[in-house]
Amino acid sequence: MTVVIDPASLVTPQTARFDTPLSLQSGAQLPAYELVYEMHGELNARASNAILVCHALSGNHHIAGYHSPADKKPGWWDNLIGPGKPVDTRKFCVIGVNNPGGCHGSTGPASIDPVTGQPWGSRFPLVTVEDWVAVQARLADRLGISQFAAVMGGSLGGMQALQWSISHPGRLRHCLVIAAAPRLTAQNIAFNDVARQAIVTDPDFHGGDYYARQVTPRRGLRLARMLGHITYLSDDVMGSKFGRILRNGAFSYGYDVEFEIESYLRYQGDKFADSFDANTYLLMTRALDYFDPAHRLGGGDLSRALTAAVADFLVISFTTDWRFAPQRSREIVHALLDNGRNVSYAEIDSAHGHDAFLMPDAHYHALVRAYMDRIDV
Amino acid sequence: MTVVIDPASLVTPQTARFDTPLSLQSGAQLPAYELVYEMHGELNARASNAILVCHALSGNHHIAGYHSPADKKPGWWDNLIGPGKPVDTRKFCVIGVNNPGGCHGSTGPASIDPVTGQPWGSRFPLVTVEDWVAVQARLADRLGISQFAAVMGGSLGGMQALQWSISHPGRLRHCLVIAAAPRLTAQNIAFNDVARQAIVTDPDFHGGDYYARQVTPRRGLRLARMLGHITYLSDDVMGSKFGRILRNGAFSYGYDVEFEIESYLRYQGDKFADSFDANTYLLMTRALDYFDPAHRLGGGDLSRALTAAVADFLVISFTTDWRFAPQRSREIVHALLDNGRNVSYAEIDSAHGHDAFLMPDAHYHALVRAYMDRIDV
Repeated sequence: MTVVIDPASLVTPQTARFDTPLSLQSGAQLPAYELVYEMHGELNARASNAILVCHALSGNHHIAGYHSPADKKPGWWDNLIGPGKPVDTRKFCVIGVNNPGGCHGSTGPASIDPVTGQPWGSRFPLVTVEDWVAVQARLADRLGISQFAAVMGGSLGGMQALQWSISHPGRLRHCLVIAAAPRLTAQNIAFNDVARQAIVTDPDFHGGDYYARQVTPRRGLRLARMLGHITYLSDDVMGSKFGRILRNGAFSYGYDVEFEIESYLRYQGDKFADSFDANTYLLMTRALDYFDPAHRLGGGDLSRALTAAVADFLVISFTTDWRFAPQRSREIVHALLDNGRNVSYAEIDSAHGHDAFLMPDAHYHALVRAYMDRIDV
Repeated sequence: MTVVIDPASLVTPQTARFDTPLSLQSGAQLPAYELVYEMHGELNARASNAILVCHALSGNHHIAGYHSPADKKPGWWDNLIGPGKPVDTRKFCVIGVNNPGGCHGSTGPASIDPVTGQPWGSRFPLVTVEDWVAVQARLADRLGISQFAAVMGGSLGGMQALQWSISHPGRLRHCLVIAAAPRLTAQNIAFNDVARQAIVTDPDFHGGDYYARQVTPRRGLRLARMLGHITYLSDDVMGSKFGRILRNGAFSYGYDVEFEIESYLRYQGDKFADSFDANTYLLMTRALDYFDPAHRLGGGDLSRALTAAVADFLVISFTTDWRFAPQRSREIVHALLDNGRNVSYAEIDSAHGHDAFLMPDAHYHALVRAYMDRIDV
């Protein structure tokens, strides 16, 4: 199948360089850094129609459209963002940015540390959700955006959107927190730690300084992704999509692929291990672990932590999401209501587990569309 | 704390050697093999008071009591089995046997293949639940037990108990299927495959023939166990036991242990990797994947597959077990009722997830005790 790409959906990533050091939550500093970002739609004269889209663990700035007519796939949220889509780029200027620590163009562990002339590797500082929001705010300054019409994201991206409402309450009018949680549970952290241990115990990890050795800890990264995938899908959707279907119709009594689900997972793991940086995976999962505004700001009370928030909120969860279950979204909703905020909340009936936030579910998209349509710019 | 061990609770494992080759479900043969087993209580004159306990993935024949006064821990089901306990060894003769393919004394991948004089390693044939039941029946023949008062097990052990009711319906009067399922789901298989891939991609695995090289794929086995542990515990019990408690009170912004849950999982992984054989782990998880009597015998219909069963059944599940959820046990119950069997079913309210079957929950134990008390010997 040939995908014919509308020239109007082509987008060119841009790079912004920041030479003012950034003080990180950890106490470390990021001396200078580059951010790669892309913009969909036109920023209006008052810069009042900007929407910031925050990405999740494996995401990046490429939120929609195509970079080149040869691209096989569009950006990761293309079904939601574009001309005439729920987040309509004829009305809004929608901005995606790759977070620092990432591996898609912004400064990260694979970038060259100007001090040493070598890749940062293990010396790249840990970056948190709060740090990302600070960086995104600097980009907004650079682009002349004093206030976003909305900040939005799913999963780890939803945590960043929530943090925006705390860190810069005056700089966003609406906040869309989708398939997120106010903090990870012990089980969430446990899955992350198995993934990280798979990477750091891979003999090709070399303490994080593998770049110069021309190897990557791809065995570990592959396992991390396979495991991640299980937690992104619901038991039900795995059952209906793969069930116990055998690859070759009969058991071969060995450890090669027997079941289709094994084939699928290994393929996903391989593909990811070839395209993603292991140090970034470590960093992103740690940022997930650390995020906990209730603990940081509210003495354990999420309502207190969200006192500063003044935006209007749309919070969305998905029924079969067991990574960040609807109950976790309701915690956010209750805390916002405690503060008298305007909150719309929807629990979307979906079989797709955590991945549902990336899917073109009709109810979900209709809801986002209706919400976005009501935003004044 | 010094544990003072009652000499009456000492038990000595025994070994039975079988020289008649065993034809396996895979078509391969196990030429000769040894089984290690232990017996608690006295077999009565008619051999009518024998109970067979089948073990799960990481279990073995050591079901209760102590092997030596120096032992720090008793057998794995010691809270359930013993004099005066729910499975009372003053009434019953309770037998535990290490399955072939195991790594605790019975012939397995680490055993010497007499043909080559080398450890079996990768050439050890895959053994299934049906094969284990066949082997256990041979042991019963050897011990002069024509019919067990009961066959029982939890998890993979429960699958063996269920298979007993199909393979040898006349040889057991009661069947206790605890925290089990009639087959794995795609999600169950997926978790197993990540665990196996962790092992087989460990550079120290050497295709399964690592024994001669004086290494073990302990990185992979450690990851497999860490992952397994997450699925044995409920989200709730992890939350109440570990939550987001930090090891050192504050973030250190790195990938060493930050959270108590990480410390716990890594410790469990290390301990297991030092004491269990990776080839056995592979084999046991594959046996789990393969078990599917509905598919093998019933054209997909579990009720048809269980037509032959004539035993009375006690089926038990635990509310927070998400590895083998209560719904999976109810499938077994419904299929047995379709066949007019006597079935007692209990869903025990427990926070402990799949591991609950190993815990001394009062309701659970009272139920087993009441059931066992009614068995005539």
